[in-house]
Amino acid sequence: MSENNKIPYKIYLSEDEIPKQWYNVRADMKNKPAPLLNPGTLQPMSFDDLRPVFCDELIKQELDDTTPYIDIPKEVQDFYKMYRPSPLVRAYCLEKALGTPAKIYYKFEGNNTSGSHKLNSAIVQAYYAKNQGLKGVTTETGAGQWGTALSMASAYLGIDCKVYMVKVSYEQKPFRREVMRTYGASVTPSPSMDTEIGRKINAEHPGTTGSLGCAISEAVEVATKTEGYRYVLGSVLNQVLLHQTVIGLEAKAALDKYNITPDVIIGCAGGGSNLGGLISPFMGEKLRGEKDYRIVAVEPASCPSFTRGKFAYDFCDTGMVCPLAKMYTLGSNFIPSANHAGGLRYHGMSPILSQLYHDGYMEAISVEQTSVFEAAQQFARVEGILPAPESSHAIRAAIDEALKCKETGEEKTILFGLTGTGYFDMVAYQKFNDGEMTDYIPSDEELAKSFATLPKVDLLS
Amino acid sequence: MSENNKIPYKIYLSEDEIPKQWYNVRADMKNKPAPLLNPGTLQPMSFDDLRPVFCDELIKQELDDTTPYIDIPKEVQDFYKMYRPSPLVRAYCLEKALGTPAKIYYKFEGNNTSGSHKLNSAIVQAYYAKNQGLKGVTTETGAGQWGTALSMASAYLGIDCKVYMVKVSYEQKPFRREVMRTYGASVTPSPSMDTEIGRKINAEHPGTTGSLGCAISEAVEVATKTEGYRYVLGSVLNQVLLHQTVIGLEAKAALDKYNITPDVIIGCAGGGSNLGGLISPFMGEKLRGEKDYRIVAVEPASCPSFTRGKFAYDFCDTGMVCPLAKMYTLGSNFIPSANHAGGLRYHGMSPILSQLYHDGYMEAISVEQTSVFEAAQQFARVEGILPAPESSHAIRAAIDEALKCKETGEEKTILFGLTGTGYFDMVAYQKFNDGEMTDYIPSDEELAKSFATLPKVDLLS
Repeated sequence: MSENNKIPYKIYLSEDEIPKQWYNVRADMKNKPAPLLNPGTLQPMSFDDLRPVFCDELIKQELDDTTPYIDIPKEVQDFYKMYRPSPLVRAYCLEKALGTPAKIYYKFEGNNTSGSHKLNSAIVQAYYAKNQGLKGVTTETGAGQWGTALSMASAYLGIDCKVYMVKVSYEQKPFRREVMRTYGASVTPSPSMDTEIGRKINAEHPGTTGSLGCAISEAVEVATKTEGYRYVLGSVLNQVLLHQTVIGLEAKAALDKYNITPDVIIGCAGGGSNLGGLISPFMGEKLRGEKDYRIVAVEPASCPSFTRGKFAYDFCDTGMVCPLAKMYTLGSNFIPSANHAGGLRYHGMSPILSQLYHDGYMEAISVEQTSVFEAAQQFARVEGILPAPESSHAIRAAIDEALKCKETGEEKTILFGLTGTGYFDMVAYQKFNDGEMTDYIPSDEELAKSFATLPKVDLLS
Repeated sequence: MSENNKIPYKIYLSEDEIPKQWYNVRADMKNKPAPLLNPGTLQPMSFDDLRPVFCDELIKQELDDTTPYIDIPKEVQDFYKMYRPSPLVRAYCLEKALGTPAKIYYKFEGNNTSGSHKLNSAIVQAYYAKNQGLKGVTTETGAGQWGTALSMASAYLGIDCKVYMVKVSYEQKPFRREVMRTYGASVTPSPSMDTEIGRKINAEHPGTTGSLGCAISEAVEVATKTEGYRYVLGSVLNQVLLHQTVIGLEAKAALDKYNITPDVIIGCAGGGSNLGGLISPFMGEKLRGEKDYRIVAVEPASCPSFTRGKFAYDFCDTGMVCPLAKMYTLGSNFIPSANHAGGLRYHGMSPILSQLYHDGYMEAISVEQTSVFEAAQQFARVEGILPAPESSHAIRAAIDEALKCKETGEEKTILFGLTGTGYFDMVAYQKFNDGEMTDYIPSDEELAKSFATLPKVDLLS
């Protein structure tokens, strides 16, 4: 214990210690993640196939599964200094409140205006777009964290940003929309009447409130049809996980400073960007056989891609204009139950994480949202941060681990990712505060129905 | 410039460098701030007079104008470690965007759940209440930052917290309310029917949407009539400025590390808690004749206590149940115009700052809200923080100073206080984004009317 007392509440690296390279975990994977497929030809997407959609440099990163370290451009390094290094926090107050012998650490990514880790990749994608001489970028956003991050990054670099925001979020989260507008982005509710796919979806489903998959289709269509624009995505893709490794690299460097080795590493999983970013450097050691860690993905019981999905090729979007990815998926038309308030609602999962999970390098659990909000509230009251519902999935799992330690007396070291703040999620908190939050677990029949729509393209698997 | 390059974007002190004592600027003031007066007897409030309202230890601090340094309790020091030291940021990106030779620094207090500096005093007041064996505290809140901070501090310490929230804010800011509820506070719209003064105000002004002065009256009434409760206040009082000196002490320590001396120090001013906290240690040097600094208070043109108010004894609240304070005031029934969205709406001003201003130790300017939001937007786009409207008053003034330097070529060093984030102020941002924000400057006649209500008690001045 005397040694522990020396560990500060918050471990900050110095500015010089912000990573200068991202770590590409694919380089250390024996079984590489399966390639993206062209939805027309079912052949692996080539560099040229991807050029109408993504920036050149990002395609290189997307396809590169051999280079272990990739340089972070100087301009991005400078931007990172604006809000990084992020603190690695020792949760002394939570430990005390739980009465656990476990040592809990969390890497907090919420101290920037996007309120989340999303800015780590947004600035990179906006930078490469600008560097390639483009006018702007398009994207989709659901809850709004990614859209906010991209708006901020685009404003900083002086490029245009068009956000397609899932209509139900656009209407229910006007404040998120206003943050993006303050950063100069145009925000359009999706499905809109601006795009072919939007008009088609509106015609087929009058009054639809939209979905993430549908907003992706719109944003991709606009990018490919507008001169000087490309599409960018906030999760799932290999390139995004690569950028997010700044989280894990900083966390590891901070722990190493104090000779701390986590026993278990926990992250919430929607598309996988935060989880992948946090665990990559630790996973690298595990893949190379240097060290062992328990690594746990936490997902909502109402959108359980890892724990109940299929490992199969599927569309990334509803409009089926995007490449196919091999991943754990619930089917591209799966939409979580209307009572689901806790984020992490994407039907699929990062191909990198899917492969690692398939190969047994990590575990996954699912948790129900009322228990997630209970954990969020408990955490907020003692740690002084109002967590995002997404992040609170990881809090739930970390608290449960710590309570197990209380039973067994084990002094485990737990590291989890606290991806962001919940200031724009107060409608969900209100439901919880009013005792009106409910849980939902999709039935096997419901999942079977959405699995039935999976494309029959598992030729390459 | 080579020297500047060594200064990081964010200067963090270590945990050990968080102040262990607050600095009491009154000890160095030749003309002490005038004492609070008992509204019944017009005599200075004694320790015993104040006991029904405030905690004993806080009364001692309120009345102590001679002890220069006051110990911060160990428990508060530990709590401070949860979110302090706060960063002192070099605004490299803003400087570049402005093209100014000025060097701009800001002390950022928004990285905690209250989203502002208010937590610095909330934890202290809640701590002394608990330490005195009390059950809970009552307070008022307008925009909600103070109420959130006190809810958080009370939840952490396990005492009850009753917040009277100005009715118009309660209705227009349901999310702020939910944050407080998440922290377990009870939140009542004011004027309520729970208190004598609330019932009286509701009867006299049916349909009133409340005011800060009225919510103060209610909170004080409940505290004095409920066994085991005391009232706490988030600004204006000497004790609050004392606690907020952690801001200035940290800022000064961080600047001293790099041998930086600010030429001008800028803070926004509502009741004065942030401004007083930021400037105190610098003001101390100025009062002792050791150094000179330009110190500038920035207030809204629609609520201009310093620049157009009277230096006189006035009530702190509408119900006239609180002591009288000698301060710059617009009259206790002054309410800013309905179009005012920018916070800082209190009619009076800290007696300490009022005396210092009166004695010529600081300047004050007023700014209009559309120009404040322009500055906020410009700042957000390059510095990556969405500032609170209140804080943006200081940003406006800092940008204007930096632009003057651009004209003259002077390389002035500017320090300003960035008190918090604007995530709960998106209605105001939306008005600005939609081009619907307007300005308002009260006429001389309007002010004359509210000055006419000032009590005739300037006997002691």
